[in-house]
Amino acid sequence: MSGLTIWTYDWVPAGPRGFVRDLRLRWACEEADLDYTVRTIPFDGRETNHLERQPFGQVPFLNDGELEIFESGAGLLHLASKSDKLMPRDPVGEAETLQWTIAALNSIEMVTVPWWFLNICGDQDNQLTGWMGQRLDHIERILSEREWLAADRFTVADLLMADVLRVSKVRAFGDRPATEAYVTRATDRPSFKKAQADQIRQFEAADGKRTGSD
Amino acid sequence: MSGLTIWTYDWVPAGPRGFVRDLRLRWACEEADLDYTVRTIPFDGRETNHLERQPFGQVPFLNDGELEIFESGAGLLHLASKSDKLMPRDPVGEAETLQWTIAALNSIEMVTVPWWFLNICGDQDNQLTGWMGQRLDHIERILSEREWLAADRFTVADLLMADVLRVSKVRAFGDRPATEAYVTRATDRPSFKKAQADQIRQFEAADGKRTGSD
Repeated sequence: MSGLTIWTYDWVPAGPRGFVRDLRLRWACEEADLDYTVRTIPFDGRETNHLERQPFGQVPFLNDGELEIFESGAGLLHLASKSDKLMPRDPVGEAETLQWTIAALNSIEMVTVPWWFLNICGDQDNQLTGWMGQRLDHIERILSEREWLAADRFTVADLLMADVLRVSKVRAFGDRPATEAYVTRATDRPSFKKAQADQIRQFEAADGKRTGSD
Repeated sequence: MSGLTIWTYDWVPAGPRGFVRDLRLRWACEEADLDYTVRTIPFDGRETNHLERQPFGQVPFLNDGELEIFESGAGLLHLASKSDKLMPRDPVGEAETLQWTIAALNSIEMVTVPWWFLNICGDQDNQLTGWMGQRLDHIERILSEREWLAADRFTVADLLMADVLRVSKVRAFGDRPATEAYVTRATDRPSFKKAQADQIRQFEAADGKRTGSD
């Protein structure tokens, strides 16, 4: 198979539409003007039906010719290697972009996703709250001093960080105006809007088929 | 400044010795035969005393000539770009190594660290327990079928995954023999043993100076 293929579920419930992580890869391809196709695997049986391609039963995963890559963060770094629109090519800019991409995954999302999970389990005042507040305050300080995280321009690090921070419960956690402006700035980009609209449209279109087969 | 410099704290309490994440970078340099120097910043005041170099007040961070890189995961990927001992150079091997490096950070550590944190806060039966069990079971299945995660050889992905999995509470969580054998296999490597011994020795040596200044 040649070209880029982004794999996602054939359907998801209304709640996660617009947030499923294939959106990160769609957004990156749109930013970089990379041609891509979206293909699907069944949502039903997802815990076990594609473990040989994504060992945690999740989406997305990416094909690029002979390459198969899972983990949205790895897919983003792979796409960034194909286009300097996602990551500058000078060593300093590249290092800055890499470190902020990993920071989004391992310093912010490592707190926000478990916090969000405890929160939707009903534990609103959970013990990750203090840690989450500290991390978001650090980001607020950084974002009050710059428009984008790395290399004075939009990069894949912003794409990922904004996607991590735009989760509604995270966005509503405290009053952080620089972070809010950053998330708005990133998600106002035409590439994000197209990627999100495409994902939502795909899942909505699948509602009919799903009802028919139930 | 030329050459590689790994920055860590000048001292830590006994508990985290042998686990502070500068060890990941020391281990990688040892595996790849890269010359490096270790320098320190004060542990006291760490929340604010080096925010311009590590925006979350943590260690490690890495200098490589003019480059400054924080996030241990980013430092590891940077070191891997300098040596094929850490990451193969063929596209398939490189993609596999990248995806498993990110998996260690964002699919495993994103669950194990918050679970560990809730655990040491006294919430042993916390709501992340089921999620953690699922993720570790997936890893156990993978590791029962292969010796190393990527490219049929030890890579930086194993270095990171083994470091994530060797945390004692994580290691003691359930009976997963393939994972246990993997952690043992990785931490039996001379490069790990040297890196760990060097870190512990450095922090122990600082005990005297610290007592003197108290």
